[in-house]
Amino acid sequence: MNEAAMTLEGWYALHDFRSIHWPAWKAADEEERAVALEELNEFLSAWEATGESKQGSTAVYTIVGQKADFVLMHLRETLEELNEIENAFNKTTFAKYTTKAYSYVSVVELSNYLAGSSGGDPMENPHVIARLKPELPKSRHICFYPMNKKRDLQDNWYMLSMEERRTMMQSHGLIGRGYAGKVKQIITGSVGFDDWEWGVTLFADDALQFKKLVYEMRFDEVSARFGEFGPFYVGNLLQADDFNQLMKV
Amino acid sequence: MNEAAMTLEGWYALHDFRSIHWPAWKAADEEERAVALEELNEFLSAWEATGESKQGSTAVYTIVGQKADFVLMHLRETLEELNEIENAFNKTTFAKYTTKAYSYVSVVELSNYLAGSSGGDPMENPHVIARLKPELPKSRHICFYPMNKKRDLQDNWYMLSMEERRTMMQSHGLIGRGYAGKVKQIITGSVGFDDWEWGVTLFADDALQFKKLVYEMRFDEVSARFGEFGPFYVGNLLQADDFNQLMKV
Amino acid sequence: MNEAAMTLEGWYALHDFRSIHWPAWKAADEEERAVALEELNEFLSAWEATGESKQGSTAVYTIVGQKADFVLMHLRETLEELNEIENAFNKTTFAKYTTKAYSYVSVVELSNYLAGSSGGDPMENPHVIARLKPELPKSRHICFYPMNKKRDLQDNWYMLSMEERRTMMQSHGLIGRGYAGKVKQIITGSVGFDDWEWGVTLFADDALQFKKLVYEMRFDEVSARFGEFGPFYVGNLLQADDFNQLMKV
Amino acid sequence: MNEAAMTLEGWYALHDFRSIHWPAWKAADEEERAVALEELNEFLSAWEATGESKQGSTAVYTIVGQKADFVLMHLRETLEELNEIENAFNKTTFAKYTTKAYSYVSVVELSNYLAGSSGGDPMENPHVIARLKPELPKSRHICFYPMNKKRDLQDNWYMLSMEERRTMMQSHGLIGRGYAGKVKQIITGSVGFDDWEWGVTLFADDALQFKKLVYEMRFDEVSARFGEFGPFYVGNLLQADDFNQLMKV
Amino acid sequence: MNEAAMTLEGWYALHDFRSIHWPAWKAADEEERAVALEELNEFLSAWEATGESKQGSTAVYTIVGQKADFVLMHLRETLEELNEIENAFNKTTFAKYTTKAYSYVSVVELSNYLAGSSGGDPMENPHVIARLKPELPKSRHICFYPMNKKRDLQDNWYMLSMEERRTMMQSHGLIGRGYAGKVKQIITGSVGFDDWEWGVTLFADDALQFKKLVYEMRFDEVSARFGEFGPFYVGNLLQADDFNQLMKV
Repeated sequence: MNEAAMTLEGWYALHDFRSIHWPAWKAADEEERAVALEELNEFLSAWEATGESKQGSTAVYTIVGQKADFVLMHLRETLEELNEIENAFNKTTFAKYTTKAYSYVSVVELSNYLAGSSGGDPMENPHVIARLKPELPKSRHICFYPMNKKRDLQDNWYMLSMEERRTMMQSHGLIGRGYAGKVKQIITGSVGFDDWEWGVTLFADDALQFKKLVYEMRFDEVSARFGEFGPFYVGNLLQADDFNQLMKV
Repeated sequence: MNEAAMTLEGWYALHDFRSIHWPAWKAADEEERAVALEELNEFLSAWEATGESKQGSTAVYTIVGQKADFVLMHLRETLEELNEIENAFNKTTFAKYTTKAYSYVSVVELSNYLAGSSGGDPMENPHVIARLKPELPKSRHICFYPMNKKRDLQDNWYMLSMEERRTMMQSHGLIGRGYAGKVKQIITGSVGFDDWEWGVTLFADDALQFKKLVYEMRFDEVSARFGEFGPFYVGNLLQADDFNQLMKV
Repeated sequence: MNEAAMTLEGWYALHDFRSIHWPAWKAADEEERAVALEELNEFLSAWEATGESKQGSTAVYTIVGQKADFVLMHLRETLEELNEIENAFNKTTFAKYTTKAYSYVSVVELSNYLAGSSGGDPMENPHVIARLKPELPKSRHICFYPMNKKRDLQDNWYMLSMEERRTMMQSHGLIGRGYAGKVKQIITGSVGFDDWEWGVTLFADDALQFKKLVYEMRFDEVSARFGEFGPFYVGNLLQADDFNQLMKV
Repeated sequence: MNEAAMTLEGWYALHDFRSIHWPAWKAADEEERAVALEELNEFLSAWEATGESKQGSTAVYTIVGQKADFVLMHLRETLEELNEIENAFNKTTFAKYTTKAYSYVSVVELSNYLAGSSGGDPMENPHVIARLKPELPKSRHICFYPMNKKRDLQDNWYMLSMEERRTMMQSHGLIGRGYAGKVKQIITGSVGFDDWEWGVTLFADDALQFKKLVYEMRFDEVSARFGEFGPFYVGNLLQADDFNQLMKV
Repeated sequence: MNEAAMTLEGWYALHDFRSIHWPAWKAADEEERAVALEELNEFLSAWEATGESKQGSTAVYTIVGQKADFVLMHLRETLEELNEIENAFNKTTFAKYTTKAYSYVSVVELSNYLAGSSGGDPMENPHVIARLKPELPKSRHICFYPMNKKRDLQDNWYMLSMEERRTMMQSHGLIGRGYAGKVKQIITGSVGFDDWEWGVTLFADDALQFKKLVYEMRFDEVSARFGEFGPFYVGNLLQADDFNQLMKV
């Protein structure tokens, strides 16, 4: 039997991609739209407050292209809280003017391939906690994609030894570190939760850095031979004011 | 010709994933909603009664994310009973406010890779019967995914000898046993019934145990080389009261 | 050039899977529903009569799960007749309350891998004719799935010699024969007609026999290395009375 | 660099598969239906006239099964003409009662694997022109499918030498010639135009010949190792009178 | 670790494919249609003006076949601008009569496989800038397709050395140069932005040149072994006048 990497888990994550049903929104009367926006703003404020009280974190971004119009990325302590958030949102008047586009369920994760073993219980280490229960940044851009490690004949990640995997992951980590200060990366694990094994969420002020980072990594053996990538979503920061602006018709 | 593993079969299973059509539900008048909820509660009670009389078992959970809003997992003696349940449910007023999201048809199964051969007819063994006709638990969380054993060139499960398969399955079983008390696992076979060969339904009070179990197993040769996985669904226990609460608008 | 197996063809087949649009059906007024059911019953009777006069055969079964609510499996002498049947059905009031779920176009086929060469023109042999123009049984259950023979690098059925294919098909046939009396199997060829190469329709009074047969065959080299399987549909016999019962709301 | 086969191109082709929205058609009032049919008949006549003046050719067939109800196969001199035809048709009242099912954009092609090099400019050769700008037959049946040549590790058509490809294509052509008089075959190239590399349209009075031809070819190395096939559509000739008959409700 | 090719990036690109909802358009009253067309024309003019002021470029083409009716290809300085354009367009009355068909997010890119290293900062080189911020031509035809470089066992582009990749890309470039004056090619990178790694947009006055170029390239090792292609879209130039003509009903 092959040794699995140890993982530490933090907050659960729900990426909730939605499209706006513009013709219905425009056809609604002024009052309905006002009520809907008020509700939306209440939710945005409540999520902001959750972030301030460190009980979770929520990021709101537009998505460029037809795949979706915006994404709500929620981090919370439990799956029940995530479920409550989506149900509460689904019941709003605003949600009536949106359609489901894509969603992803996962949990913030650190794997021990890279973890410094400083000894002691990592869950008491404030640096570890800060990474497992992160405050989502307000960078100008977001990028999200799910991924697997391949299991394809001789290119089978899960048949490699722990040592081989560790070596490759360390080389991989070096590339990521080259983007420190430019790209913030949050890895969430979704084995047992959703259709891919991991979700990758990147934040940057310069969207080109997403391309440069992912492209450079693709030549690294761990991605080149073993990475299997799902759909990519890219978008722009959507502050509460921008959201109200966006909905003006 | 290669020897197939013997399997024992118990209750048939229907996993019925549904989404709630919230705008229609909200647009319905109070009375219609009251009628719909009454019907829903009658069905929930009837399924509960079936469980109490050991004629079957039904589990009701929410699903997190956009894939579905809830799942009804029914175990019954025959395919006809499962069909009657879904048709009766489809005819309710409540069902009018739901849309189909996914379903899975299978039968609870034990394979002889792991079965202790105590001699005698296994179908007279109460331990075997209890596993083939199980009472579904009321754990806080559910996880469901369908899967195949791969048939891909040199990674072809069905071309392995019985002995090779038995050895791998036993190692696989050991991992599962390490989660005893944390994760309850129900394997259903769907060869000839649905698009994948097996369905796996897991129950746990701590959802992280799903991730840990499935991830650990993925390094085991039987999963690493031969496992092919379909969509994953994860959710939270939805007792009758919770369901009524969920539908409040 | 590699030798193809000779095939004999009989009746053309259309598997027509449909779902019932329950909310629309319930919303229809009593009279509309009565008219619709009358039409349905006329069609069911007409198809029955076609069967009695040996001009074709039609089987009607429910489908368990969300993929479809029922299947109409029609065998007829020509593609034109099948097309007329579906068009006539589509024009009924009843059809307005159904939605398309899946369909399959093929032709009943016997391949010479297994045919006893008794000499003489096989199309004059009543046993052959009975298999090419079969009366569909009224077993309690149906199972349908389409399939291909793989062409994947070294696992390429169509690059094997006639002799290799014949040997494997004979071993395969032996398994099928082990289910004589339990499962009736109708093979239809769809090369040039639909997206897979064959359709397999099984009938049995005990649905578990579908699982046992398909599972046992999967270990046989012809399936293990060369079988590629599409969606599986399973259901229960739906006699005219049952159909009327099913539609009661 | 590997040598590509020379190709000659003739008329552009649009295969336009449509379904009829029967409930809407039946719900339309008599007058609307009459107007719609009049328009349909005008288009059918106009396309017929185009064929008579050798400016193009149009074939109209039903499709059996749920994939579509009919196909309009148009051959014209330019992509602009094809686009005008579909736009004009989309604007008709009749089109309102149809839904899009599938379409394919390609161009009639002859490849030099098989071309006799009689010397001289082939585009001045009337036999070549007749094949590049063909009059579509009114056979009883049509079969359409798109296809690729595989590029899968050692089964990579595009890495073979010109000589290897020519030899295989000639063997392939021999099979086709064995169906002369039974099946008329029109090859259209779609590299750069649509999702597969070629479209194959077959015409025959006996639909079984489609099955026999495609099945026999599948054992030929060029198909067995290198053929990758898309969806198959099969149907029956739909003359103007039949079309009017079909639309009667 | 393997060396990635350097890339230079210019304008961001959004390919926005849409279908026209003809029945709704025809059902709209004259005035609504007039308002909608006026809006459309304002947008077309505004995009034209952006092009003239070199702040971006927009191309408008029909698409042949059912995949879409037209494409808006926008090049702009930032992702925010692209997002504003699509949102503004989505809010128009005209957009209400269109449906989403496909979209693609990428950025104009030059890779250093082919770049002449003339020394100096390439972003100060007017030839480089002209290619990174191109004025889209008004050729008669457009062709768009997304693509990947394969990572499939021994056919893994990203495991090749820089030298191997450079040699193949140079041979590839030679083919492209053979079409100079016939086909204009714009490569956009989408790693981190959309589901494929690159988008290829071709412009030509003779649509056959798309077929000839892509077909010839397919025999080149870089495409034959390493190219993985998505959907292809082909269409005709749609000037403002043509667009108004197209919408006449």
